[in-house]
Amino acid sequence: MSGSITGKILKVSTWGESHGAAIGAVLDGCPAGLTIDEEYIQAFLDRRKPGQSRFTTHRNEEDKVRILSGVFEGKTTGTPISLMIENTDHRSADYSNIKDIVRPGHADYCFNEKYDIRDYRGGGRSSGRETAGRVMAGAVAVRFLSELGIEFLTYVDSVGDISINEDSFDESFIKENPLCMPDRDAYEKASAYLDELMKVGDSSGASVKCIIKNVPVGIGETVFDKLDARLAGAIMSIGAVKAVEIGDGTAVSTSRGSVNNDEFYSEDGNVLKKTNHSGGILGGMSDGSDIIIKASFKPTPSIYSEQATVDKDGNNVNINIKGRHDPIVAPRAAVVVETMTALVVADLMLSNMSSKLENVLKIYNE
Amino acid sequence: MSGSITGKILKVSTWGESHGAAIGAVLDGCPAGLTIDEEYIQAFLDRRKPGQSRFTTHRNEEDKVRILSGVFEGKTTGTPISLMIENTDHRSADYSNIKDIVRPGHADYCFNEKYDIRDYRGGGRSSGRETAGRVMAGAVAVRFLSELGIEFLTYVDSVGDISINEDSFDESFIKENPLCMPDRDAYEKASAYLDELMKVGDSSGASVKCIIKNVPVGIGETVFDKLDARLAGAIMSIGAVKAVEIGDGTAVSTSRGSVNNDEFYSEDGNVLKKTNHSGGILGGMSDGSDIIIKASFKPTPSIYSEQATVDKDGNNVNINIKGRHDPIVAPRAAVVVETMTALVVADLMLSNMSSKLENVLKIYNE
Amino acid sequence: MSGSITGKILKVSTWGESHGAAIGAVLDGCPAGLTIDEEYIQAFLDRRKPGQSRFTTHRNEEDKVRILSGVFEGKTTGTPISLMIENTDHRSADYSNIKDIVRPGHADYCFNEKYDIRDYRGGGRSSGRETAGRVMAGAVAVRFLSELGIEFLTYVDSVGDISINEDSFDESFIKENPLCMPDRDAYEKASAYLDELMKVGDSSGASVKCIIKNVPVGIGETVFDKLDARLAGAIMSIGAVKAVEIGDGTAVSTSRGSVNNDEFYSEDGNVLKKTNHSGGILGGMSDGSDIIIKASFKPTPSIYSEQATVDKDGNNVNINIKGRHDPIVAPRAAVVVETMTALVVADLMLSNMSSKLENVLKIYNE
Amino acid sequence: MSGSITGKILKVSTWGESHGAAIGAVLDGCPAGLTIDEEYIQAFLDRRKPGQSRFTTHRNEEDKVRILSGVFEGKTTGTPISLMIENTDHRSADYSNIKDIVRPGHADYCFNEKYDIRDYRGGGRSSGRETAGRVMAGAVAVRFLSELGIEFLTYVDSVGDISINEDSFDESFIKENPLCMPDRDAYEKASAYLDELMKVGDSSGASVKCIIKNVPVGIGETVFDKLDARLAGAIMSIGAVKAVEIGDGTAVSTSRGSVNNDEFYSEDGNVLKKTNHSGGILGGMSDGSDIIIKASFKPTPSIYSEQATVDKDGNNVNINIKGRHDPIVAPRAAVVVETMTALVVADLMLSNMSSKLENVLKIYNE
Repeated sequence: MSGSITGKILKVSTWGESHGAAIGAVLDGCPAGLTIDEEYIQAFLDRRKPGQSRFTTHRNEEDKVRILSGVFEGKTTGTPISLMIENTDHRSADYSNIKDIVRPGHADYCFNEKYDIRDYRGGGRSSGRETAGRVMAGAVAVRFLSELGIEFLTYVDSVGDISINEDSFDESFIKENPLCMPDRDAYEKASAYLDELMKVGDSSGASVKCIIKNVPVGIGETVFDKLDARLAGAIMSIGAVKAVEIGDGTAVSTSRGSVNNDEFYSEDGNVLKKTNHSGGILGGMSDGSDIIIKASFKPTPSIYSEQATVDKDGNNVNINIKGRHDPIVAPRAAVVVETMTALVVADLMLSNMSSKLENVLKIYNE
Repeated sequence: MSGSITGKILKVSTWGESHGAAIGAVLDGCPAGLTIDEEYIQAFLDRRKPGQSRFTTHRNEEDKVRILSGVFEGKTTGTPISLMIENTDHRSADYSNIKDIVRPGHADYCFNEKYDIRDYRGGGRSSGRETAGRVMAGAVAVRFLSELGIEFLTYVDSVGDISINEDSFDESFIKENPLCMPDRDAYEKASAYLDELMKVGDSSGASVKCIIKNVPVGIGETVFDKLDARLAGAIMSIGAVKAVEIGDGTAVSTSRGSVNNDEFYSEDGNVLKKTNHSGGILGGMSDGSDIIIKASFKPTPSIYSEQATVDKDGNNVNINIKGRHDPIVAPRAAVVVETMTALVVADLMLSNMSSKLENVLKIYNE
Repeated sequence: MSGSITGKILKVSTWGESHGAAIGAVLDGCPAGLTIDEEYIQAFLDRRKPGQSRFTTHRNEEDKVRILSGVFEGKTTGTPISLMIENTDHRSADYSNIKDIVRPGHADYCFNEKYDIRDYRGGGRSSGRETAGRVMAGAVAVRFLSELGIEFLTYVDSVGDISINEDSFDESFIKENPLCMPDRDAYEKASAYLDELMKVGDSSGASVKCIIKNVPVGIGETVFDKLDARLAGAIMSIGAVKAVEIGDGTAVSTSRGSVNNDEFYSEDGNVLKKTNHSGGILGGMSDGSDIIIKASFKPTPSIYSEQATVDKDGNNVNINIKGRHDPIVAPRAAVVVETMTALVVADLMLSNMSSKLENVLKIYNE
Repeated sequence: MSGSITGKILKVSTWGESHGAAIGAVLDGCPAGLTIDEEYIQAFLDRRKPGQSRFTTHRNEEDKVRILSGVFEGKTTGTPISLMIENTDHRSADYSNIKDIVRPGHADYCFNEKYDIRDYRGGGRSSGRETAGRVMAGAVAVRFLSELGIEFLTYVDSVGDISINEDSFDESFIKENPLCMPDRDAYEKASAYLDELMKVGDSSGASVKCIIKNVPVGIGETVFDKLDARLAGAIMSIGAVKAVEIGDGTAVSTSRGSVNNDEFYSEDGNVLKKTNHSGGILGGMSDGSDIIIKASFKPTPSIYSEQATVDKDGNNVNINIKGRHDPIVAPRAAVVVETMTALVVADLMLSNMSSKLENVLKIYNE
């Protein structure tokens, strides 16, 4: 079945394998009249670019986006926006030794069983590279949401046991360090930890937080298309994510109603909440507070120590993974979390337009 | 937009408000030839029935399912299965005092802003009662999956700070206690804790675990319709859920690749994993191990202590909630987690049928 | 697969068999705040009611609609609207003699092959009775569109070889005759023709025209969700329809560009067309003129003369159909064409709301 | 909204404007293991290639397909197949004179009203060139269906008043004449007729017939996803189509049940029909006979005689269209009809796989 298309009104279709000819996305349903260009999208792609620090692979992809359709004289036309990156750095030879062996922690075994055929070069479709398509399409969604005053703040919240300290939160520092952490002290500890792991060929898990500001109240559809349901699905679809939390997340299970409920109050005609345990979502709809999502990433499965596994014929073998692999997924994945979030929020903002007759009349009868 | 329909091949459409005339679901896409009757579905509904213990509301709903279509002479016909419960115990009067006030922790405020109109009786569409529709439809999915040897084990894993002890896991005990816990000692502690909370009109969070056994390898579609993505969306769509974890969940963020990777081995011609940190899902597809999902439920927002809030006109007011409310959501919600999970797995099992040409030929050319 | 759900933003899910317990529809995505009641919907149902003239079956169904959800204090709430008719007149015995025989011109043979099981009573899901669900849901769509000034004119355009004469078009007469024809003379000829056919147990084909007035320009989405594409799909999905035409329809194949092109002109600030060969649709979008759809209905396949066919075991047998059957489908189907059309237009009106950024800003930034 | 994506299991997303950088399609959901290459797809593209005869435009596009993803070592992998043609022959200058004027019979006016912006070069997204994406994706569907023994026969059935004579039907001649007619005599008359029209700058309507052989019984889903409903929607979505007929089409409206019903009979264990008025579809499902679809195409709206119209500011003006335009749409559109048909049939073949439990067990329990 078609698993590479998502969205209801604003739909994304992504395609491409890690070592194929190109990788891309088609964004359909973007409102006409939005100013967008390749430079804007490129800035998002650059945030997930490999080869930027000692913590990322040295693949020398240019990852240069081309807008092939849907934009005319600098503005979206309402027709599908096709976005593409030609792959230029194929070192497929690196993967020939794992062609017939399934890597622990990877999708290889499942792909073999499901399809009986697999583009084994660099993970093929299950490569992290697949997310480039999402980032390109999601960058357009971010651009769209910025017209409505909606902003994103995304960062690495923890690396291994090292969590950021909210008291020393420094937003400006996020872009200044390769781990995208908003806390200099935590960054330095995490850096040292990763250096240790890299020496032994190991990798680390981490978590990413994404905060969305200024979403109007009521975004999200009742029951199955709730804002949190759609966000959870979108974020969990990113490779290596094993948990999605909204607001206080898992901590709500140990809380009490008298603590967890966010009391409302009114100030200067605005309805506000005294706390934000809900993470900005109540009953599946935005409640006017910051929306807070946290994703837990597993450690990069490609490690350099020898591991036990099986080959295609079911023999027990050992595997030594070579090639270029990050010791941590999260810093490059932060922009993926942000852009996936943007795609969901943008889609639900569009769908919310028809939630009441008053809105329909505003468009057609005025 | 239509948020009350989910699924791709096996689709569910739910409808109904807490205090409306009836509540129901339409399940479309169920294969023909499946044996099913009202008694089978009723057993699932009974697991979420109120009024069963001191921890659940005393609403005296019969919650009696009727199959209105799609089943003929005891078997599904391939046409939509309409399932309905007539609402019989409307005590709408209980809610008149909160008609114009938004309850903290509830969807009231968001509903008002989104639609400008709200069936305030018992939460209307955002009531936990909405899940009855899911349970009825999901029971059919469980029935379907049982034909393929797939089984579910669902229980309350923790209540407040009290977690079950894996070493004293007792599956048979789950059905014997109103908290659906598989550990007698944990149950007793949790019971005592809830009794304390009820005395002060407070409520508790909790977590639910759902384990799915015998799912074949390769279920789940690449990229957006990954098994874990679809499960996360489905589980997060249940009211009060604030976190969804697969396998080791949030703990992966503090793990290392050398620990978190599950090594494969071959035994008697079967490919197995030495560990199951992945929770049975790799690259978004089932990997043959047990699939493990954990959902964190927030404490019931309806508590009996006075809370600050606002009314419809934006005045600061206090609210005292009356009516019938459970001090904990999870025990009755466990069957909702199970049935939502079943709907996702069944849908993806059907979609996986066309994953390879060999399967298509097996149906049409043999 | 689920074939009983349609629509993108405004979605309908229908269910029910001819002789099952009930028949119904769930309409999800209707904007909140629309005034609607059972009486309004009933009027549409009554237009397809059997037993109204000598040309319709004498089944004494009440066909009484119940609104079970989604409407509160006379207005839609934005949640799913569940609509149901309890079946009261089951004369299933009438069908026992055809249980194992496939009727020519009916879906019986295909149902048997597809599902291996079939509710043979009255056609089950493939009965014309299935359209009652569409009519109930579509009546809500008509109600919605009337808020936007959109009106429908639907009638039987021809019966056998007898077509209405545009020069003697009498709109008021449509409701006064059981064949729903807008031309008294044509009606009388058609009546006499049908009387002749009924004497010999035969049936007649016919055509239905539906004209939609005041649809704003630009409704319909490019490429696959074009207004005409969606209308064609919706109308062809009505049992017995074998052709769908827009505007000049099949006649365009014999026309010339210089004749078929509708020239534009401007008058009092309005852009108008000199002719309407296009039937109000250009490039898949409404062009501001009346939208004109024509559906060709085949003769009722249930005829009373003996026919050759096969039984379940593949034996050649003869069949004599009994029971209650109309000699013509179109008069009762006219309201089905109208309501299906309304569902499509309403859905595309909602989707068009997000076609340009200016509209989005009108909802969120004003 | 996203109108450029269609299909349920086998989904196509098309993109691109006539004079943009490229044009393409993404096909998601194609079963893995299908042999396919660029040469196979190219043959379909060549059937709609311009510049092949005096009846087609002299645009010198190479229209060279590239497979960018989803195919590995000559076989589909189950992941999205991205197909692209780089546009090489942009003569955008030709269109500058119509930039601010809406062409009669074209989508220009509707585009302007809907989006407020329009890529006016060559029709942009509403250009016939958009269908190249469909043809590429549909060629893969044809390839897939050929594995199941399903074959297509597509031809121009009439040009203006000149229809083919079934008695002189010559299948081999279809590929030998630029009008794709299966009757030499009709071709010669049609040729002469078009020559006359071209002299006066006019254009002709035409009809295309598509016959699908060997579709198994039962393909098509009940109610809204009926085979004929889906075909009608798909074919009507092709620019210039104004009518879709199945089997006897509009002629059923003048027929009688005793004539129109196709009697069944059994021969050598096979159930057959004595006639095929139904066009191979009963109750929305394939009935085992040839499936017969007819599409009526309007005359090319771009004609060379002066026409009255309006400009962007609502002034009455005259327009003289220049550029390259075919005097007839149908011959190049025949392959579009065929490939759209293939996409629908393939999608419904895949969805039918899960119609009965027996099939599900065949895949999973054997």
